[in-house]
Amino acid sequence: MNRFGERFSFTTFGESHGKAVGVVIDGVPAGLDFDIEFLQTEMDRRRPGKNQFATARNELDEIEILSGIFEGKTTGTSLALVVFNKNQKSKDYSNIKDIFRPAHADFTYFNKYGIRDYRGGGRSSARETIGRVAAGAVAKMVLNQMNIKVKSGIAYIGNIGSDDNYDFDFAKQSEIYSLTPEFEQLQKDKILEVKNQHNSIGGVAIVHIENSPIGLGEPIYYKLDAILAEAMMGINGVKAVEIGAGVKASKMTGKENNDEINENGFVSNNSGGILGGISNGETVEIKVHFKPTPSIFQEQKTQNIFGETTKLNLKGRHDPVIAVRGSVVAEAMASVVILDMLLLNMGRKMEDLKKYYS
Amino acid sequence: MNRFGERFSFTTFGESHGKAVGVVIDGVPAGLDFDIEFLQTEMDRRRPGKNQFATARNELDEIEILSGIFEGKTTGTSLALVVFNKNQKSKDYSNIKDIFRPAHADFTYFNKYGIRDYRGGGRSSARETIGRVAAGAVAKMVLNQMNIKVKSGIAYIGNIGSDDNYDFDFAKQSEIYSLTPEFEQLQKDKILEVKNQHNSIGGVAIVHIENSPIGLGEPIYYKLDAILAEAMMGINGVKAVEIGAGVKASKMTGKENNDEINENGFVSNNSGGILGGISNGETVEIKVHFKPTPSIFQEQKTQNIFGETTKLNLKGRHDPVIAVRGSVVAEAMASVVILDMLLLNMGRKMEDLKKYYS
Amino acid sequence: MNRFGERFSFTTFGESHGKAVGVVIDGVPAGLDFDIEFLQTEMDRRRPGKNQFATARNELDEIEILSGIFEGKTTGTSLALVVFNKNQKSKDYSNIKDIFRPAHADFTYFNKYGIRDYRGGGRSSARETIGRVAAGAVAKMVLNQMNIKVKSGIAYIGNIGSDDNYDFDFAKQSEIYSLTPEFEQLQKDKILEVKNQHNSIGGVAIVHIENSPIGLGEPIYYKLDAILAEAMMGINGVKAVEIGAGVKASKMTGKENNDEINENGFVSNNSGGILGGISNGETVEIKVHFKPTPSIFQEQKTQNIFGETTKLNLKGRHDPVIAVRGSVVAEAMASVVILDMLLLNMGRKMEDLKKYYS
Amino acid sequence: MNRFGERFSFTTFGESHGKAVGVVIDGVPAGLDFDIEFLQTEMDRRRPGKNQFATARNELDEIEILSGIFEGKTTGTSLALVVFNKNQKSKDYSNIKDIFRPAHADFTYFNKYGIRDYRGGGRSSARETIGRVAAGAVAKMVLNQMNIKVKSGIAYIGNIGSDDNYDFDFAKQSEIYSLTPEFEQLQKDKILEVKNQHNSIGGVAIVHIENSPIGLGEPIYYKLDAILAEAMMGINGVKAVEIGAGVKASKMTGKENNDEINENGFVSNNSGGILGGISNGETVEIKVHFKPTPSIFQEQKTQNIFGETTKLNLKGRHDPVIAVRGSVVAEAMASVVILDMLLLNMGRKMEDLKKYYS
Repeated sequence: MNRFGERFSFTTFGESHGKAVGVVIDGVPAGLDFDIEFLQTEMDRRRPGKNQFATARNELDEIEILSGIFEGKTTGTSLALVVFNKNQKSKDYSNIKDIFRPAHADFTYFNKYGIRDYRGGGRSSARETIGRVAAGAVAKMVLNQMNIKVKSGIAYIGNIGSDDNYDFDFAKQSEIYSLTPEFEQLQKDKILEVKNQHNSIGGVAIVHIENSPIGLGEPIYYKLDAILAEAMMGINGVKAVEIGAGVKASKMTGKENNDEINENGFVSNNSGGILGGISNGETVEIKVHFKPTPSIFQEQKTQNIFGETTKLNLKGRHDPVIAVRGSVVAEAMASVVILDMLLLNMGRKMEDLKKYYS
Repeated sequence: MNRFGERFSFTTFGESHGKAVGVVIDGVPAGLDFDIEFLQTEMDRRRPGKNQFATARNELDEIEILSGIFEGKTTGTSLALVVFNKNQKSKDYSNIKDIFRPAHADFTYFNKYGIRDYRGGGRSSARETIGRVAAGAVAKMVLNQMNIKVKSGIAYIGNIGSDDNYDFDFAKQSEIYSLTPEFEQLQKDKILEVKNQHNSIGGVAIVHIENSPIGLGEPIYYKLDAILAEAMMGINGVKAVEIGAGVKASKMTGKENNDEINENGFVSNNSGGILGGISNGETVEIKVHFKPTPSIFQEQKTQNIFGETTKLNLKGRHDPVIAVRGSVVAEAMASVVILDMLLLNMGRKMEDLKKYYS
Repeated sequence: MNRFGERFSFTTFGESHGKAVGVVIDGVPAGLDFDIEFLQTEMDRRRPGKNQFATARNELDEIEILSGIFEGKTTGTSLALVVFNKNQKSKDYSNIKDIFRPAHADFTYFNKYGIRDYRGGGRSSARETIGRVAAGAVAKMVLNQMNIKVKSGIAYIGNIGSDDNYDFDFAKQSEIYSLTPEFEQLQKDKILEVKNQHNSIGGVAIVHIENSPIGLGEPIYYKLDAILAEAMMGINGVKAVEIGAGVKASKMTGKENNDEINENGFVSNNSGGILGGISNGETVEIKVHFKPTPSIFQEQKTQNIFGETTKLNLKGRHDPVIAVRGSVVAEAMASVVILDMLLLNMGRKMEDLKKYYS
Repeated sequence: MNRFGERFSFTTFGESHGKAVGVVIDGVPAGLDFDIEFLQTEMDRRRPGKNQFATARNELDEIEILSGIFEGKTTGTSLALVVFNKNQKSKDYSNIKDIFRPAHADFTYFNKYGIRDYRGGGRSSARETIGRVAAGAVAKMVLNQMNIKVKSGIAYIGNIGSDDNYDFDFAKQSEIYSLTPEFEQLQKDKILEVKNQHNSIGGVAIVHIENSPIGLGEPIYYKLDAILAEAMMGINGVKAVEIGAGVKASKMTGKENNDEINENGFVSNNSGGILGGISNGETVEIKVHFKPTPSIFQEQKTQNIFGETTKLNLKGRHDPVIAVRGSVVAEAMASVVILDMLLLNMGRKMEDLKKYYS
C-alpha cells in the first residue's frame, strides 16, 4: 500500500533511480491559495547535498505541478506533484547488484517481491520521502491559515543533546536543524567524526504541533497518538516513537505523571497534548528515534541473493545521519495527520452538522 | 472510528457501564476449528479481580458467540462476540459526575462530543479492550495452526526490571506476567507499595512474534512496524513504542547497529525482525511503555465541565498499574496485525497469484 | 467484507438461524435524540409475517440497544443494535442439507468458503438486512432533523404498475407498499396468483430523496450515483439499478435528455438529481429492479455438494415477492448513503474549514 | 475521493486542459512482464479523433511510465502512468466561462467547490478516464495470464440494436464497437444523423467477463455485482446498470428466472454469473446504459454562476455519442474489479492460507 491518510490522503510513487518520484494528494480543500514557493522551500529543507553533514548527492528536486490548481487556487481535485530524477543515469552498481546491504530493505524486498532493484534501494530509498514532504507542505498551507504550527528539529545526535530547552527558531537556520544552540557544534563534530570513520550515527528528532484545536483524533482506532505513531514509525530508519513524557511515563507514579488542571488550564504536559487519543489543546509533543544510516563504508558480512555468504564493501556518498533530514519528513507527516484529523472531526456533533448545512 | 485492520479487521462496541461490550470480527478464514475454551482463557488473562495486583472489580467476562460459527467451524462470515456487563448497576458517581479526572479522557471526550458519560469512563474505559483481546484470541487460533507464536510479558514495573533474559513461560504463570524470575517479587512489592500509598506506577510490556514468515508488511504506508506502532500506541495508557533496538538505536553507530548476515542468517537482531517495514524472519520484538494508572486516591486539582476549578478525591477500586493487564492487550493487537499482514501479503507475486487460482 | 460506508458506516453480523442478527454503526453524530420507537417502527416495516403477501414466518424482530446511547442521546461512539432470533430452533432441513437451491447463494458460498450452512441460507439470508434497516433508521433520525426525506414504494409487481404518478403517502399504508392506488389491487392479485401457483414474481421499487443539499457526492470514485448503485445492487435479489431517466436515457437524444435551467431552476429531472456524481438539489430518483423470490415450490433440477445431479422440492414459507420488503431495505440503504455523503462533504472548501474551527 | 479499489486500486489525477492526466496504480503483483505496446493499444481504443463517429479532438495520448517497472517487469510498487496533454493551449472559452452547460457537471462542481474550471469540464471531463483505461490495461495483463477475458461492445445506439447475438470479435474491429454486424450500419447512420442535427444520442454497452473463477466477490458489502454497479455507474454519462437478466428479471416469475443446474452446470444464465454477490463460474454479464452526450450545438436555456438566466450556444467538437468510447472505459473498470476481487478472495479458507505459507 502506497497510500496514507483518510480524508486528506496521499499516494506516492517512484524509485531512487527511476524516471521520477512524486505524489498524488486527495482531499485538498478547494479555494486554497497555492504557494508554490513555499512548497519548493519545504522540498529544499529535505533535499540532500547542501552541506558537509549530508550526502553529497546534489539534486535540486524541482517540483512540478501536474494537476489540481486553477488560476492559483486548489480546485478540490487531485493534486499531482512530481520531481523528475536528474541523477538517475547512475553509477556502477555491479558490486552490489546481487548483495543484500545489512540493515537495508534489500533482503526483505527481494524475498517479498522476488525482485532486486539494486539502484540505490529502488522504492525503499529515502528518496520516496519527497512525496511525503510535498504532501506535508500542502497540509501546512492549510494549517497556516488556521494558525496551527508544526515545528521540528534535532534533539540528539547519538547521545549528544538535551531533553528540553528546544529552540525551534534556532533549528530552522541550523545546518543540522539542531534544537539546542549549546549542543549544535558538538553535534556537528560528532557527525563529522563518524563520517571520517566511514561510519554513521543515530539521532533523535522532535516534532511539536502548536495551537491544535481540542478534539482531534478518532477513538478508538484512529486515535491521534496512534496515527502519529504509525506515521512516524513508517519513516525510513525510525525505531521508536514517544508521545509526551513517553518512555519516562513508564517510570513515574500516577501522582507524578498526572497533569492537573487549574484556572489556567493544564499545569503540566506529560500527556503530550493527547488524552484518550484526542487532542486536549496543549502542544502535541512527539519524539522520534532514528537508527544510524545503514550505509557505512566498512567491510560487512552479508549474503547475496543466492544465499551465499559474502563481504560487502560499500562505496559512494551517503548521509552520515538519517535523523537530520528525517526530521523534515517527520514534521511533514505530522502536518498531514493533523489536517486529516481536522477533516475527520467535522460533524462529530449533531449540532455542528445541522449548522453546517443550514 | 471503531474499526482496526484491513483484511482481518474488527469493530468494537460498548461502554464500561453499558449493557454489553463486544466485537464484530471480519475476515476470519473459513473452516477454522473454533476453540471457545481457548477464547475464554484469553479473556481470563485480561480480566480484573484475580489478585491483589489488579483492581478488585471482579467480573467473569463470560464471552458469548452471536454469529459466525457453524458446527464448530468458522464460516468466513462476521464473528460477533459479546460480554454482557454484570457490574453495570454501579456505584454512586455523583461526586465525579461533572468533574474531569486528571490524565483521563473525560476532558477530551466531553469537548469533542459534548457528552459526559461519567460511568467509569464510558467508552474510553479499558473495558473496551475486551473486544481487542477477543479478536486477538481468534487471530491466535489461526496463527497457532501456522506455528506463529505471539508472546508477551512485563519487563519493568517503574524502574524495576531488566532489558534482557526474558522468560515468556515464566510470565505466563506469573500473577503480574513478569518476564524475569529474579525481579518478579521486587516488582510485586513495588505495585503493593504504590497501592498502599493510594498511588499508581508505570510499566513496560514486551511482545515477541516468533516464526513470522519473511515478507509481511506492506510498503510504503502499511509497514509492519508502522502498523504495530499504531496498534500499540492506541492501547489505553501507552506513551511510547520501540521496535528492536528502539531508543538505543538512536545512540548507536551504524557499525554497532547494522545486523550482519552470515551462513546462519542474521547475526544480531537490532532491527527487531523488520527491515524496510517488512518482516525478515527473525523474531519481531516490540517494547511498549505504559503510563501509570491515572486513577489515584489522592486529592488532585482539576476543572469541572463548567470550567470551574475544583478538587477531585477519587474513591473506588482501580488497577495500581496498567501495564500488567495491558500486556495482554498488546499481545492481542500484535496477533491481529500479523494475521492481517499474512492476508494482505497473499498475491504479491504474479507467480503466487497464478498458482493459487490454477 | 461486512461493512458499508465511509464516515457513517456500519458492520452487520448474524445468520438466518443463528443466535442473533445485528449491526454496529460507526460515525453517528453525538447528541442526537435517539427515538427507539421510530427505530422499532422501521424494523416492523421490514419484518415478515404481517399479511398474506409476505412469508408466514412471523417474528417480532424486537431490537435491543447494546451500546452508544447515554441518557437518551447518542454519544458519538459505536451503536450496537441486535435482534435475537426467536425462530432459530427450526424445521427439518434434512431434505436440502446437501442440495444447492437454484438462484440462491448456496452454490457460491459453498464454493467460496467450503461450508454449507443449510439453515435458511445462513449468512446470505435476507434476514441479514435487519442490520441495514436498523442503520437506515438511525440515518433517518439524523436526516429528519435536516429536513431531508427518503421515501420508497413499489412501482411494479411483474409488469403491473406505472412509471409515474407515485404516491408515497399511499405507499406507506399499503400492505404491499404500492405507489399507485389504481394498480394496488391488481398488484395484490398478481402476488396471490403466483403464490397459489407455488411460484414467485419480480418487482420494481422506487426510492426518492427529497431536499438533498446541493454538493453531495465525492468525485471521481465515490460519486453519489455510483455509491447508490453499489448500495442498491448489493441488496438481495436486485439485478438492475437506474438513476433518473435511467434506461430511457440511452434511447434519447441530447436535446430530449438535457435538463435545461430557467429562473425557477431545473426544468426537468432526467438526471435524477445528480450531475457528475454530485447532487444538484433536485429530488434524487432511484429505480431498483428485484428478481422473483428464488424459493419456489415446484420441482427444480439442481446439483448437490457432491456434484451430483438431483431434483429439489422445496417446502416451507417464503415471500412470493422480494421487492415489497426489499423496498424498505432500499430506502434504508439510500438513507445511509446520503448521511455518509453529508459527512464526507464537510470541509470541501477552505472557507468552510476555517469557519468550522474559528 | 479519486481512488478506486481495495487490493488492486488506483488513483487518478488531471484535468481536461491541465498539464497532464494520469494514474497511480497500487497493488500490481510483482514479476508481471509489462507489455507497454498492449497498454498503448488499449489507450488508443479509448482515444478520440479516430473517425467521424467521435469528436475531432485528436490527441495521440502517448502514455509514459514514471515508476513501478524494473528491467521490463513490475516490482510490486506504485505504477505511475501519465499522458501529457498536447491540446491544452486551447480555444477561447470566454463564451461559456461563467455559464453552466445543461446536463454537465459544471453546476454541481461550482456549488460544491466554489470553483468554475471552464476549460473543457476540468476534472469532470471524460479525459479523466484515460487513467481508468490505463489501470484496466494493467489489470488485463494480469487477467490474460490467468485466461480470464473481459470483452465489450455496443448493443444499442438509441433504440437501434439487439439484446442478443453479440459478436465481440466483430466489435473489436468495428469503428463504433458494434456487437451486431446486422445493425452496425444502421447504428452508424443514426450517429451521423444526430451529428448533422447538432444533436447527440444515447447508447448501451455490454461487458462480458469470461472464465471468471468461482468464488469472486466479498459478501455482504463488497459483492461482485455491487462493486461492478458502482464501477459502471461512476463512468461519465452512465444512468443505469443491469446484471444478467437485469430489468427483465423484475418482470419474470421464479420459475422463469431461476437458473437450474444439470450435469453440464447451469442451464441458463439469468443470474449473469453472480449469485449472492459471488461469481458462479458462468460468464459475468453487464449492461451499461449511457445518456446522450450533453454537449449539443443547439440553443439551450440555462443559468450562469451569478444565478441569472441565460442562453447557451455551444460550439466546438464533441462526440455525438458517449457510449462508444464509454464501452472501453466500462471494460477497463470491469477488469480492475475482477483483479481486485481475485486478490481479495485469497485466504478465504483456512486450508488455502496454510498451504500458501507452507
